Amino acid sequence: MISRFSHSFIPTKREAPKDATSLNQKLLTRAGFVHQELAGVYTMLPLGLRVLRKIENIIRKHMESLGGQEILMPALEPKANWLTTSRWNNFDVLFKVKSQHGYEYALGPTHEEIVIPLAKERAKSYKDLPFSLYQIQTKFRDEPRAKSGLMRGREFGMKDLYSFHESKEDLNIFYEKAKQVYIALFKEMGLDAKITEASGGDFTKKFSHEFMVLSDAGEDNILACSTCSFAQNAEIAKVKVGDSCPNCHAKIEEKKAVEAGNIFDLSTKFSEDFELTYVDKNGKKQFVVVGCYGIGTSRLVGTIAEVCADANGLVWPESVSPYDYHVVVLDAEEKLVASQLEKLLAHLEKEKKDVLVDDREERAGMKFIDADLIGIPYRIVVSSKTAASGKVEIKSRSDEKGRLTDIKDI
Amino acid sequence: MISRFSHSFIPTKREAPKDATSLNQKLLTRAGFVHQELAGVYTMLPLGLRVLRKIENIIRKHMESLGGQEILMPALEPKANWLTTSRWNNFDVLFKVKSQHGYEYALGPTHEEIVIPLAKERAKSYKDLPFSLYQIQTKFRDEPRAKSGLMRGREFGMKDLYSFHESKEDLNIFYEKAKQVYIALFKEMGLDAKITEASGGDFTKKFSHEFMVLSDAGEDNILACSTCSFAQNAEIAKVKVGDSCPNCHAKIEEKKAVEAGNIFDLSTKFSEDFELTYVDKNGKKQFVVVGCYGIGTSRLVGTIAEVCADANGLVWPESVSPYDYHVVVLDAEEKLVASQLEKLLAHLEKEKKDVLVDDREERAGMKFIDADLIGIPYRIVVSSKTAASGKVEIKSRSDEKGRLTDIKDI
Repeated sequence: MISRFSHSFIPTKREAPKDATSLNQKLLTRAGFVHQELAGVYTMLPLGLRVLRKIENIIRKHMESLGGQEILMPALEPKANWLTTSRWNNFDVLFKVKSQHGYEYALGPTHEEIVIPLAKERAKSYKDLPFSLYQIQTKFRDEPRAKSGLMRGREFGMKDLYSFHESKEDLNIFYEKAKQVYIALFKEMGLDAKITEASGGDFTKKFSHEFMVLSDAGEDNILACSTCSFAQNAEIAKVKVGDSCPNCHAKIEEKKAVEAGNIFDLSTKFSEDFELTYVDKNGKKQFVVVGCYGIGTSRLVGTIAEVCADANGLVWPESVSPYDYHVVVLDAEEKLVASQLEKLLAHLEKEKKDVLVDDREERAGMKFIDADLIGIPYRIVVSSKTAASGKVEIKSRSDEKGRLTDIKDI
Repeated sequence: MISRFSHSFIPTKREAPKDATSLNQKLLTRAGFVHQELAGVYTMLPLGLRVLRKIENIIRKHMESLGGQEILMPALEPKANWLTTSRWNNFDVLFKVKSQHGYEYALGPTHEEIVIPLAKERAKSYKDLPFSLYQIQTKFRDEPRAKSGLMRGREFGMKDLYSFHESKEDLNIFYEKAKQVYIALFKEMGLDAKITEASGGDFTKKFSHEFMVLSDAGEDNILACSTCSFAQNAEIAKVKVGDSCPNCHAKIEEKKAVEAGNIFDLSTKFSEDFELTYVDKNGKKQFVVVGCYGIGTSRLVGTIAEVCADANGLVWPESVSPYDYHVVVLDAEEKLVASQLEKLLAHLEKEKKDVLVDDREERAGMKFIDADLIGIPYRIVVSSKTAASGKVEIKSRSDEKGRLTDIKDI
């Protein structure tokens, strides 16, 4: 797919908005990926949405590999269900919506209240278990502060998967598999996540694991080994700064990190609330054992922006970049340039690459600044100089210098 | 993609829920496509979500052909913007959300209040116009009644496109193009839509056109020619039942219809509210002329279910069917059957077809009933009989009888 910059909604800016405090908000706004509507509430502009969709599709692929079946649950959740789980008055960031017609709804910050009753439609016998359902959907949280750009939103995208099992043992098998899948999917997006054991969160959670990406923008503190993958959440850590790592004896350090995902063993708490039971091999009724597995999708856009950036702007990993190539056209009015550009685009289109072509009437310096700011992995320059040489200049976003190459070799 | 029914979340039912009043709710629930959470609030189960995604992708393709750029706006909209347009107290189905932290939001039933200020990021000079932005996103409406299944939801999927122009003349060119694109995309989904001129709706709308699909489940009445495509909304119709059609002189009849889409000329109403201006060729400031183009995506799932059904269940058009083939396996324990099934699935997978394989331990009659209910366009039977013949039985959902065929000819 070829997009022309001159016709695209990419409002790049020289300056970050004055009220922006986080690096991801500054960069993503300046580069034209997002537009803040309210604190913690963003519009995804075409570039930001392309990144989000790539992240979602990577997650989707990995959830399918776990056997997850995709569904889409609503944001309006029945008050009655939240009363059933005793969370209507105890879930601190719950948005409540009052209808003019006398109803009340929870504006979903999570979906146990929907998915557990829904699971009754299938979980009847032990033969129906295990199975897992997931969605990629919009969540709402009435956060007191929302100052970290896409890291902590009042409205945000999330993937939540729920798994249903006969026994704790069967849950554990799935839970360990999910851990490995999470690490793999973060890696596919260019993120190195550490798994930390964390407190269970609110009273409904038995225990949980968090997937932490080291970043100065992180709101969590973790105690992490300087060498190996050992890490603990500072809130419940048994090690302290300066200790030797129990795994490899290197030094433990305190680091800031972003929680990119979390997984919970919910045990039978919600199954008991909603009487989600199955009949076991001996004909006896048992509560279904449930696990819950979350990943913030729009938060990942922010996390990757924080982690993959330099002084000049964003540096997207290829797997989530909005485009594969950023073509800068100079001297566009020259015949030779036009014909080289045409040849280049025909080649890239044949190779099924996604290309952003900067065909704006702007000076060269501005175009190079915007290319660095937007951070597409490869920049290709087409100009009177390259047209004369018969080659184009290609530069990786993370390299200092480009090199001349034949179009057919790209 | 091959899905096994035995492992899939497809809760088919013999009976419709007692409170279901509309055909689409009855059929989609019985066939395991949707699950009602509240009146007008549904979960899309795997089959329903597959249909929704196909509808969305057809719409997306046509929006791109119009030059639309996809974005994603939030559901939480600032109260201040709704006060600016005087709709905070005048939009009858507006859900209002109160934060514990003192904020108030509109839970977006439409997005003029977000997209018009956003358009200021680009619409500066006449050179920046025209352009158009669209999203496929979840909308909320505090409907007094929500009894028509997916036809009138309190929460529902929608595509909304907004176009921005220099002049009324330029809007008109786009508006007429959009009309043709709408008719084409409905046709691609198997729907024959009539365009009716309608009242502008609330006070902000200048005039509008509705795209009406004839269906007894429709909540609108239109006066339509029995022969040609002429139609008018009953509310503002100039013709009456029994009149001759002004186009072709056939008889005018009153019909029930579902509004599948609508388009509005918003003129400069919202541009004036938010001072969305551009500088024209003469250096003069002008208000941007705006058009708005909606399609209910989840409503289309319901509309197609109503229109494409018979006494035995759903009959999906190929373009939006959750799968291409529904394979019914009988006598699965027989070796010959297993090997024929394997050969069939290898062939369909090579052809990149999406296949639902009914491998459940159910009796044949039940499997055939479910196949008709679910309504995938082609059913293929693999049994001891077909295995012995070396051919499989294929039947179109709308045909009475199947025929034997070689696997390679499918």
